[in-house]
Amino acid sequence: MHLTKEDIQNTEKIKRLNIINSITGIKPANLIGTISNDGKTNLAIFSSVIHLGSNPALIGFILRPDREAGQHTFDNIKENGVYTINHIHESFIEQAHYTSAKFGRDESEFDKCALTEEFIANHKAPFVKESTVKLGMKIVQTIPIELNGTVLIIGEVEHLIIPDTAMDDQGQIDLSEPNDVGISGLNTYYKLEKIAAFPYARPNALPDFSKND
Amino acid sequence: MHLTKEDIQNTEKIKRLNIINSITGIKPANLIGTISNDGKTNLAIFSSVIHLGSNPALIGFILRPDREAGQHTFDNIKENGVYTINHIHESFIEQAHYTSAKFGRDESEFDKCALTEEFIANHKAPFVKESTVKLGMKIVQTIPIELNGTVLIIGEVEHLIIPDTAMDDQGQIDLSEPNDVGISGLNTYYKLEKIAAFPYARPNALPDFSKND
Repeated sequence: MHLTKEDIQNTEKIKRLNIINSITGIKPANLIGTISNDGKTNLAIFSSVIHLGSNPALIGFILRPDREAGQHTFDNIKENGVYTINHIHESFIEQAHYTSAKFGRDESEFDKCALTEEFIANHKAPFVKESTVKLGMKIVQTIPIELNGTVLIIGEVEHLIIPDTAMDDQGQIDLSEPNDVGISGLNTYYKLEKIAAFPYARPNALPDFSKND
Repeated sequence: MHLTKEDIQNTEKIKRLNIINSITGIKPANLIGTISNDGKTNLAIFSSVIHLGSNPALIGFILRPDREAGQHTFDNIKENGVYTINHIHESFIEQAHYTSAKFGRDESEFDKCALTEEFIANHKAPFVKESTVKLGMKIVQTIPIELNGTVLIIGEVEHLIIPDTAMDDQGQIDLSEPNDVGISGLNTYYKLEKIAAFPYARPNALPDFSKND
């Protein structure tokens, strides 16, 4: 199948949404936790978390301020500058998925979706107790993407909580150990199976690819 | 394990690179193909491709202009405005990984890593023939991220090429059908197994999560 830009524009809206949300490949599955200054917590699923750099440790995510989940998350981050990023594991994907429902501002997705708030010293935003890999984040920059009204939120990692067994002594994290999942499109979840690890690639140490000919 | 911002800053450089490149969860595995105006092709692996919006169909990726792969890709895109995004499948992950080696500007990663250039009408940039899901992209905006010298490249989808069998009539793409892979960190590859799909989440149609208590 070959779809051109015009074909895509002429595709029915929901189908186009499904296609374009799927074509970048697998996406990370994270829950972002926030709290308003009057103590109301919010939890929302995001598949747009992205590595930006490791020194300083910067992570971004794309937020749509015109959608309910984006609005509540954005308002809370603007109020106090902090949020959490919590990996989604196989044991609670259905609960995580339903955080995307349009709940009212007075309803917490933690409560509605049977996930547990967890607080640590020196970080105001709620973590997800059921998540075993999680980050406490502090916002450092907001970049509006005017083309479509989205916003790139950039934060610095203030806290990293991870099971000792998930990280080796080189700092490599095995995502299959905590049963992390990935997302395709808006509603499809994938289990991850580690199949290969290669050394740092050097031009003078290439494998012999001629065997593939 | 609980690492604070200070612990992360004090971690040895390579270990920190591994940790921070892994903590966002699974990342998509794509090869970005470009060509200079004098006809030299370039191919580089990127794990930072991200969905930005479906109408218009916008996709971003993070590029480091200070690294060889980023520099060659960026220079070519600036010359003619087009590039391709090609999914990496299980059959050629090692070849794809080695496109990250620092080859000279006159060496094409297609040649060095035994991948095949493929050209289509009305798109100047080279696709990867071995890839079965691929996008022809046209740049629409470049957003510098001054915090760490990276750049968010935003492009519009001009061509989408995908096997008929990988997409259902709702536009949902099954990533396991073309044997797509995901990346963790800088060098670890994961196979994807579809385990769940849920309906669009509505607050008045929540599953009964009390059974989880």
